Amino acid sequence: MKNIHVVIWGFGAMGKGMADMLLTKKGVEITGVCDRNPAIINTSIFSLLEEPKRNHPDVIITDDITTLLDKEICDIVLLATDSFTKNAFPKMKQVLEAGINCISTAEEMAYPKAQEPELAKELDAIAKAHNVTLLGTGINPGFIMDLLVIALSGTMKRVDHIEANRVNSLSPFGPAVMEEQGVGITLEEFHQGVDSKTLAGHVGFAESIQMIADALGVPLTRFEQQMKPIVTTVDRKSPYGEAKKGHVAGVNMTGQGYVGNDVFIDMKHPQQIEPEMEGTHTGDYITIKGVPEINMGIQPEIDGGIGTIAMCVNMIPHVLNSKPGLKTMIDLPVPRAILGDMRDLIDS
Amino acid sequence: MKNIHVVIWGFGAMGKGMADMLLTKKGVEITGVCDRNPAIINTSIFSLLEEPKRNHPDVIITDDITTLLDKEICDIVLLATDSFTKNAFPKMKQVLEAGINCISTAEEMAYPKAQEPELAKELDAIAKAHNVTLLGTGINPGFIMDLLVIALSGTMKRVDHIEANRVNSLSPFGPAVMEEQGVGITLEEFHQGVDSKTLAGHVGFAESIQMIADALGVPLTRFEQQMKPIVTTVDRKSPYGEAKKGHVAGVNMTGQGYVGNDVFIDMKHPQQIEPEMEGTHTGDYITIKGVPEINMGIQPEIDGGIGTIAMCVNMIPHVLNSKPGLKTMIDLPVPRAILGDMRDLIDS
Repeated sequence: MKNIHVVIWGFGAMGKGMADMLLTKKGVEITGVCDRNPAIINTSIFSLLEEPKRNHPDVIITDDITTLLDKEICDIVLLATDSFTKNAFPKMKQVLEAGINCISTAEEMAYPKAQEPELAKELDAIAKAHNVTLLGTGINPGFIMDLLVIALSGTMKRVDHIEANRVNSLSPFGPAVMEEQGVGITLEEFHQGVDSKTLAGHVGFAESIQMIADALGVPLTRFEQQMKPIVTTVDRKSPYGEAKKGHVAGVNMTGQGYVGNDVFIDMKHPQQIEPEMEGTHTGDYITIKGVPEINMGIQPEIDGGIGTIAMCVNMIPHVLNSKPGLKTMIDLPVPRAILGDMRDLIDS
Repeated sequence: MKNIHVVIWGFGAMGKGMADMLLTKKGVEITGVCDRNPAIINTSIFSLLEEPKRNHPDVIITDDITTLLDKEICDIVLLATDSFTKNAFPKMKQVLEAGINCISTAEEMAYPKAQEPELAKELDAIAKAHNVTLLGTGINPGFIMDLLVIALSGTMKRVDHIEANRVNSLSPFGPAVMEEQGVGITLEEFHQGVDSKTLAGHVGFAESIQMIADALGVPLTRFEQQMKPIVTTVDRKSPYGEAKKGHVAGVNMTGQGYVGNDVFIDMKHPQQIEPEMEGTHTGDYITIKGVPEINMGIQPEIDGGIGTIAMCVNMIPHVLNSKPGLKTMIDLPVPRAILGDMRDLIDS
């Protein structure tokens, strides 16, 4: 049986991490990488990766995806280029129309129905027409604040209220994230960034909250989210970020899904550099009121970068086994680490 | 659209709990209950339940399952009669051969391939021949020490070692469990009980460990388990149990799945009455070494009785939607609480 053939589209931190991870797995092969960054086009991926080449064929980065979208050399595309459904849409359309399965890292694609219901319908129709599957996933949205909440609720007779908190550190991240999250800027700059929508904050509350509501069968009456600065009272410094006392060390995102006038799903996601310097301990926390009551903690938080990389790679067999169409994490079997040959996980 | 029709076979604590839970749900109806206990045959289930009758038709308990195994009145049987596959086998066979789906609470049925591979094959063939689905589930095995471990591993690039600990209290349980777990007996009686196999301890390590190994694609070289007494140093008393100082307050079950000569999956499951009296705090704990490392805790532990009841009821839609055959929790989408109309979860 031939290896599973994977093409990676987008070779930033996520794409590179997926390549590194795939190189450690059996029964799978990277058959192409596409990126538009002129600095890396026509280079071997092995000059950019941590994993050595070993027995894997060389892969030269191209900026022309069309040469890679061939069923003979590609079973699935891992698309790691965008955060928003509408930006990823033409790329996903192109992949699906070539008759190839696709996993997207775009945060909104974790539950595209939440904010882009029309595009979600269109993607589902295109995937079905070409007999392939499309999935959006990642650590969050995609797992921590949605799928894990949903799975835990499966042990409950009754659910009255859901709270999910993800308290994480931005210290491991690079300059792009520092900029997106406003690390080091003044309060005034922060408020300007929020007004002009140049500060991203966390993308995913709308998706996580709608995924939970739909999975549990709860009609939401309203969704809200807020974005507040985390102002440091001490000087903080991380490898790529620096926030002086009184400046912004990160962003506190909060979001709520209402049933009637009551908050039914409550989310808090503070992200900052060096949280320990002011006594904040990172972790993922889920509290579900009901019968029985559930109080879960994961300390420290599951690493966002590695987690997203792993979720995308680990979901490959589930996507290849799935019925055609646009799927979300609640439609497919639970994710799992792949320690054996990936081909053994494919339904015959 | 008609309600989903559920028959409950076995009306002990689990069966009654499922009935109570079903009565709080929309789009589902209990169309029959079978039990062989003479004390309850020909009684209305409502004389035995906590939930009031409301608009639900009356249900009289019968000891004749054949009258209930009719597709017109039954979409699925919840079978809550046994712990072991071979004891539940003839019952499951009868249900499947009537063309009816089935969920079993038998601990071994959570992953019957582990200890009864021949019966598992036969059940799969029978279910497929009659175009129906069979699932074994429960809180543990079925969720805490297996499915949840597997789901968390989905966020990992590499897994080196898995530890799952479930520290729970037996205090809420009744006289049957006190006897099965040896609460109150002497050390000598305990060792006799282990030798004569009259003490059950926890049934499920073989299933949980094999489920994890298969899900991750790890070939195990060996499985072992041990059963040790928890001897109390103080007098302990629970509603249905009593252990004097020096006597047995519960059972400490431990189990290991080996790869080569190393323990790859390590399980600890101490169960006792009044654990707090000697400073033991109950909870569910999962530690997975690898990249990234995961340390999860749920405190207190998810209630075993309610959890099993909820898992069985909450999996009904997934079983009705599934392809035919014998399925396990790793084949189906994640469990979830059902807060809306159960019929809305059925694929059209």
